[in-house]
Amino acid sequence: MSSGQNYEREFVRTFFTSPTAVDGEDDSAKMLRSAAQLRGMRAPDAWVPDNEDATAPSMREEGVENIVTVVSEHGDGFPGEIHPRVVWHRDNPSTRYQGFKQMLEIADPDNGAIDHIDGFVIPEVGDIDDWKKADEFLTIIENEHGLAACSLSMSVIIESGEAELATNDLRSEVGKPSNNLERLFLLVNGEVDYTKAMRATTPTGELPPWPELRHNTSRGASAAGLIAVDGPYDDIRDTEGYRKRMTENRAKGMTGIWSLTPGQVVTANKAPLPPKTGSWLLAVDDREIELDNEDGHHVYSGDELSLEVINDDRYILQVGAEEHELDSDELREELLALTAYVSGMDDIVDSMMEFEAAKDAGKGAIAMTQSTTLEIDGVSLEISKDRMWDEATYQAAQTPITLFQDVYKHRPDQHEELKEMYGGNVVERAMAVGSDD
Amino acid sequence: MSSGQNYEREFVRTFFTSPTAVDGEDDSAKMLRSAAQLRGMRAPDAWVPDNEDATAPSMREEGVENIVTVVSEHGDGFPGEIHPRVVWHRDNPSTRYQGFKQMLEIADPDNGAIDHIDGFVIPEVGDIDDWKKADEFLTIIENEHGLAACSLSMSVIIESGEAELATNDLRSEVGKPSNNLERLFLLVNGEVDYTKAMRATTPTGELPPWPELRHNTSRGASAAGLIAVDGPYDDIRDTEGYRKRMTENRAKGMTGIWSLTPGQVVTANKAPLPPKTGSWLLAVDDREIELDNEDGHHVYSGDELSLEVINDDRYILQVGAEEHELDSDELREELLALTAYVSGMDDIVDSMMEFEAAKDAGKGAIAMTQSTTLEIDGVSLEISKDRMWDEATYQAAQTPITLFQDVYKHRPDQHEELKEMYGGNVVERAMAVGSDD
Amino acid sequence: MSSGQNYEREFVRTFFTSPTAVDGEDDSAKMLRSAAQLRGMRAPDAWVPDNEDATAPSMREEGVENIVTVVSEHGDGFPGEIHPRVVWHRDNPSTRYQGFKQMLEIADPDNGAIDHIDGFVIPEVGDIDDWKKADEFLTIIENEHGLAACSLSMSVIIESGEAELATNDLRSEVGKPSNNLERLFLLVNGEVDYTKAMRATTPTGELPPWPELRHNTSRGASAAGLIAVDGPYDDIRDTEGYRKRMTENRAKGMTGIWSLTPGQVVTANKAPLPPKTGSWLLAVDDREIELDNEDGHHVYSGDELSLEVINDDRYILQVGAEEHELDSDELREELLALTAYVSGMDDIVDSMMEFEAAKDAGKGAIAMTQSTTLEIDGVSLEISKDRMWDEATYQAAQTPITLFQDVYKHRPDQHEELKEMYGGNVVERAMAVGSDD
Repeated sequence: MSSGQNYEREFVRTFFTSPTAVDGEDDSAKMLRSAAQLRGMRAPDAWVPDNEDATAPSMREEGVENIVTVVSEHGDGFPGEIHPRVVWHRDNPSTRYQGFKQMLEIADPDNGAIDHIDGFVIPEVGDIDDWKKADEFLTIIENEHGLAACSLSMSVIIESGEAELATNDLRSEVGKPSNNLERLFLLVNGEVDYTKAMRATTPTGELPPWPELRHNTSRGASAAGLIAVDGPYDDIRDTEGYRKRMTENRAKGMTGIWSLTPGQVVTANKAPLPPKTGSWLLAVDDREIELDNEDGHHVYSGDELSLEVINDDRYILQVGAEEHELDSDELREELLALTAYVSGMDDIVDSMMEFEAAKDAGKGAIAMTQSTTLEIDGVSLEISKDRMWDEATYQAAQTPITLFQDVYKHRPDQHEELKEMYGGNVVERAMAVGSDD
Repeated sequence: MSSGQNYEREFVRTFFTSPTAVDGEDDSAKMLRSAAQLRGMRAPDAWVPDNEDATAPSMREEGVENIVTVVSEHGDGFPGEIHPRVVWHRDNPSTRYQGFKQMLEIADPDNGAIDHIDGFVIPEVGDIDDWKKADEFLTIIENEHGLAACSLSMSVIIESGEAELATNDLRSEVGKPSNNLERLFLLVNGEVDYTKAMRATTPTGELPPWPELRHNTSRGASAAGLIAVDGPYDDIRDTEGYRKRMTENRAKGMTGIWSLTPGQVVTANKAPLPPKTGSWLLAVDDREIELDNEDGHHVYSGDELSLEVINDDRYILQVGAEEHELDSDELREELLALTAYVSGMDDIVDSMMEFEAAKDAGKGAIAMTQSTTLEIDGVSLEISKDRMWDEATYQAAQTPITLFQDVYKHRPDQHEELKEMYGGNVVERAMAVGSDD
Repeated sequence: MSSGQNYEREFVRTFFTSPTAVDGEDDSAKMLRSAAQLRGMRAPDAWVPDNEDATAPSMREEGVENIVTVVSEHGDGFPGEIHPRVVWHRDNPSTRYQGFKQMLEIADPDNGAIDHIDGFVIPEVGDIDDWKKADEFLTIIENEHGLAACSLSMSVIIESGEAELATNDLRSEVGKPSNNLERLFLLVNGEVDYTKAMRATTPTGELPPWPELRHNTSRGASAAGLIAVDGPYDDIRDTEGYRKRMTENRAKGMTGIWSLTPGQVVTANKAPLPPKTGSWLLAVDDREIELDNEDGHHVYSGDELSLEVINDDRYILQVGAEEHELDSDELREELLALTAYVSGMDDIVDSMMEFEAAKDAGKGAIAMTQSTTLEIDGVSLEISKDRMWDEATYQAAQTPITLFQDVYKHRPDQHEELKEMYGGNVVERAMAVGSDD
């Protein structure tokens, strides 16, 4: 699938939309202008001047001018990709024609912005034939403006059942001689409009979780070599909820997410990167509690669990309302089942290097061990977790490292912050490890 | 998709099946006869004289006669649509031929029932080519009986993996010149037989929840302009469980559900309509507790939460086992996170009108506020929730109103009950607000 | 779909992989040799000599020889089917050609193994066109070696988004004159590599649950008359977790699972078979507690629930923190809602026979009753649960019996253990009940 693609990134963590023209301001392009000057963790991987929903219909003509002006002036230094969103609707040819005219104008080389624009975002697409209409407009625009064929990428917002279904067809449709769908880049979920199209409701007006939509978008992206991005998280102050949503998304293979503010951009740029150091979790009652690291010991100081020594090799472990009398082996087993280890960047690199060395020495599988001293109610106990690594484990574990390498390669403006986060040594080792498969 | 459709309804809340012939009764059509005379909230949107599973095989010939007799006599006054279910099976041509003959007989104008029959329900369909066989029989029946082409709608029960997959193909198959699948109306889940076809089992014999099936049916309906209906809820006495299932379904965009009794019809006719007045919920420990409204204050009187004033601006809030010392701003923030507002019909209409006025005044987005005085352990506190509304929010919020309007338009027999539920003023305002998009 | 299929089994409970050649052992085929001699519950329904991930790349040539040797020697007496896994990759023609050569060699009649080999397992498949490449190689191999067309079955491991999507196409692709995909047998999930292909990550490195993948694989298998098998469960010591996963899978229609050790084979061979006797569960706080059967009474002796008699017909029932004062009817209703009955093999057979008799007597639906005396805090109460059975319920309830019959028919080596589990009488009755639909 990769031939013909006009983008190099393997990952997009952040998809940040800005209104293109705000009424009642001295400078209607103020928000565009400030977004264009974001750098480092505050700058998104994909910046989306939004001439659709974020901008009032009456301001969209001015929005096109503002995109042209601001991107011409600031585009050169912007560290992420730039993908303006134009208007589009599967059910409305007049909206589609407006979208065509907006793209034609923004892409006009005489206006000076097109050198810095990587592609366009098409909202409200329908089935695959509707995607082809947008693709055809881009082909015409490239031709009219003397741009290389497929030099403009196309990202779509999935906000209807028919668009969700279209993600099934990408593998068989991309590459047909009668279209240029190779230009596809991001598949983005748009849950507000999807909810409307599906006529779904919840008692409190919150968005439904739509786990199947997210799975299908992620799978469609994976099958067609594209990148999946989840929709906006409305409650801007709820950083914890935003992080939780991203953790869920990554378990579905969806690394990217929409960001509505530079604060959300920072959170979402950092969230998929592994933590600097590993940590131990204790799972009690469906809650996961991170243990305090005190001089290498991992200490639990909560109330959900208590441990008491009866004599030499007898312990009483109380978990919630249940009480178990155990010897030290049984206790160790019980605690192993209750604990989990979250790998840090350093651990992942270590494990990968260890496996690479083993492979060079002709071994197909080796055991990786994580050990610590657990301390509960003053009682200390060594525990260690083994995990068998084979080629498949190695390659699956590589995903966060590949992400890190991709970020490091494409975002020099974040090098300083990455070094602060991890230390120069870890960064260097993380860039050296692994291989393309 | 709407051209060629022979139905006007946008929503079907209730799909109510009645046995067509019961052995051992003086009048084998007794249940049909009583169902045909249901009115108001006890009458379903779609009534299904069921000549398949609800009727013993030996009684089905008599069932056809009973349908003809009862629908001829009572069909004219029946307030919902009438869709008899006939026999069908994707794997059995003999069953399919029986189904054809049953429809041919029921639709015979000489028998007098066809004027009141809106379409037929085809169970146990297989892949899309099987759906086309049923469609072709309906085309032949229309032609033989001199009925207008596509005047009979066709609804299917999804009770196999292949039928679930067929819901992906509707957009590309409906409208082909070689079929009349434009007649499609309802996509109904049949979880008992689906479970059998999938050879799924649960320890207690309960039906699996099948969330993906419900998603896919709802999505297929949405993509093809059809209406999705969930299958029967066996435990007739468990009204709470039935309501919970419907709440889940609506979050998937599936508004309709099967009803097995007039009691279930009442519950399911009312469930998707917004409550008359809004209410405040407090979420503690994954449970949602509705607060008591006492003179405009919303009072919490449970044990999961306690609040104490220390001095002027210091509070102690205890949530479960956790205790927080907070100032009033922090307290307000904490309580906001714990509360949710369920909109009433009046609120939705107010918010929509407010947004419409703002839009006319050239604004693209406005904040909607819900405020109340919360009272916990005798301590009172003003809280208010803001939500940003833009065009997309407005349109998504409109779904329950559109449903209400659709119900009001097609079910004059429910006007009286709707006025009792909401008051005449709210009904009038709800009918006036909103616009087709 | 069944015509042309070269397998008779309706179910595969266990898919057991063995490394084909282990370096550093006296006999590199040691593990193959011991697996080939497993019998009874320790022997899987499908045994998979694994010349892919379980075997180091440098050992795979020797692995092919080992398969040939061990299967020639022990294949005749092996009680399950034998399906070697060879190498394959959708993105790598060199790997695919290796896979072809491995199969060509293993299937060579001169080597003597092919008489005992039922088919091959192809990992890492891509979209349906990739499946066809493997199918074509098998066709060529059959032709070259003078084997009957389609005598070798083909099973695939779903470990990419495109392979998951391909499961949608099986019904329309199988049976085309240009392929022999009728040879398809198992659709197996491979979650480790799927996770890698989807680039999904979790904080602790655990595999994501992938409920949609399991649904789609199961549905694809059901729609095409194939058998679905879930991927490996890494934590070999966690028998409870393995069982829980299988319970979840069966609720999705996926009866089979990968086994990594003979211990897991025993667990997975037994898990889908109904328990010998029924049991009563009490559901408190999302936990299900099996009640102790003491002389026919079912006794609850935990702390989550307490019951007290006030006087003749007044009771106080405490569930968690909630206290209810109830009369005996209300109490019975409350307890009914809290209890569930898990059917034993004997019950299922009884209920099926009862329904069959009723059907012969012309009845379409009958009520099945389960009764017991519940004892809580010394207070006894009769409760009984009714469930309406019609044809659909009957057929759905039949699934575990059909499974049992299929096992009994194809696995004579397990007869002894099955008789020990159930008693000869129950086995006999279970073999006699039911009918093919």
